[in-house]
Amino acid sequence: MTIDIATQTALIRVAHAVADAARPETLRAFRSVGLEADNKSEDGFDPVTIADRAAEDAMRAVLRRERPDDAILGEEFGHQAGTTGLTWVLDPIDGTRGYISGTPTWGVLISVADDTGPLFGLIDQPYIGERFAGGFGVAEMTGPQGHQILQTRAARDLGQATILTTFPEVGTPTERAAFQSVASQTRLTRYGMDCYGYALLAAGQVDLVVEAGLNAYDIQAPIAVITAAGGIVTDWQGGPAHDGGRALAAANADIHAQALAILKEAAGD
Amino acid sequence: MTIDIATQTALIRVAHAVADAARPETLRAFRSVGLEADNKSEDGFDPVTIADRAAEDAMRAVLRRERPDDAILGEEFGHQAGTTGLTWVLDPIDGTRGYISGTPTWGVLISVADDTGPLFGLIDQPYIGERFAGGFGVAEMTGPQGHQILQTRAARDLGQATILTTFPEVGTPTERAAFQSVASQTRLTRYGMDCYGYALLAAGQVDLVVEAGLNAYDIQAPIAVITAAGGIVTDWQGGPAHDGGRALAAANADIHAQALAILKEAAGD
Repeated sequence: MTIDIATQTALIRVAHAVADAARPETLRAFRSVGLEADNKSEDGFDPVTIADRAAEDAMRAVLRRERPDDAILGEEFGHQAGTTGLTWVLDPIDGTRGYISGTPTWGVLISVADDTGPLFGLIDQPYIGERFAGGFGVAEMTGPQGHQILQTRAARDLGQATILTTFPEVGTPTERAAFQSVASQTRLTRYGMDCYGYALLAAGQVDLVVEAGLNAYDIQAPIAVITAAGGIVTDWQGGPAHDGGRALAAANADIHAQALAILKEAAGD
Repeated sequence: MTIDIATQTALIRVAHAVADAARPETLRAFRSVGLEADNKSEDGFDPVTIADRAAEDAMRAVLRRERPDDAILGEEFGHQAGTTGLTWVLDPIDGTRGYISGTPTWGVLISVADDTGPLFGLIDQPYIGERFAGGFGVAEMTGPQGHQILQTRAARDLGQATILTTFPEVGTPTERAAFQSVASQTRLTRYGMDCYGYALLAAGQVDLVVEAGLNAYDIQAPIAVITAAGGIVTDWQGGPAHDGGRALAAANADIHAQALAILKEAAGD
């Protein structure tokens, strides 16, 4: 669908307001003493689930006020229908295991999509105070060092590349083996970055992020940010990745093609 | 050796001044476009080595002025003898591979030791603006959420623990297998945190950090911070870890004993 400039501007503003609303809710429990996912409270929920729900509640409240006719797909409270053809896709705490370990690699993921996929997205890291934005002609970040334009890396040989994924297992044994066949040809493989890895790709710091077992709300904001910064995100066959599953995020078409050829072969099923 | 309170106070102040001096030098190149360890300049040094040396230079300048008679052991410029019995141990950028990937997991490590080992240490993360300090009765951090006391986690069963290491390979194949025999009994294993993992242990966020192939300057500051916060750091046989090699950092004596029993058995050589 075609979205006029005024609406694009409004959607960008609302996305930032949604991210602002989530920040205090996610930070309240982060690194709190005794935070553990298995430490259930009386209502049966752990502190992480409580933070997750409080953040998504706060985000939905902004959308109810600002964009009442848009649809919402959220990790915690599911799908709410709309009438505008636009859907907000929300993951209040992406990287829960990073969150409960105190690592500053989890994030709040917010995007707005039409039926072709995500149009604009934010990856927000509340603890560091970093926000990565992409779509509608925007590709930028704000953080401890101020404001910067996002631009993915130029093409280089796979043998000079840095690749990220969160867990060495990646997903199934086949998916792990497929990841390893790409990673073994790169210069540097790093783990543990959760959604922050996609932000680093958009910021031109790494060449590839390869993951599997994703949900739509895990990948739509990264797709918007990375695409706006000059990168490419597909599944492992080169098709759209916005419904989740396996994702290959690449800094440019050249490194994407190099990694895709290996993943297609190794994970072909 | 016995160090009077006035000297302890002076050493703490100098350590912070040393960390302050390193911050701008490490941040200048961090996330700069095109930063790559293989991108050599005319003098044959890459941008990371240049940042590493500039930071250690700045740190040594503070020590020359404030503590001219103490010895210095630094990653970049080696050992400088002293006459006081105290040695400053400096790692200007610990976690170089994290640094060149843009991850906020590298750190500046500063400690002061006598012949028994580290007495006071700092783990500084300049990008986030976090500093973890421990020794001489101090165990505290400052960061985006202000000032907090550092306190490691209480004892729990290994099956409920979170364990960190930076690379799945850990070190040699034997070391990797030994790590895996501990990790396989924990609830959650996370990778990629560089020296930030030790800070998270001191801050009560995780239970164990297990690494191998360390240098003295990689581990002395973490030892000081973790010990001050209530934790224990030894090698994999339960002996001192401050000369480097293999390290087992644990939140408390109980989880240390559980992990040590497995490592001793698995890596016994």
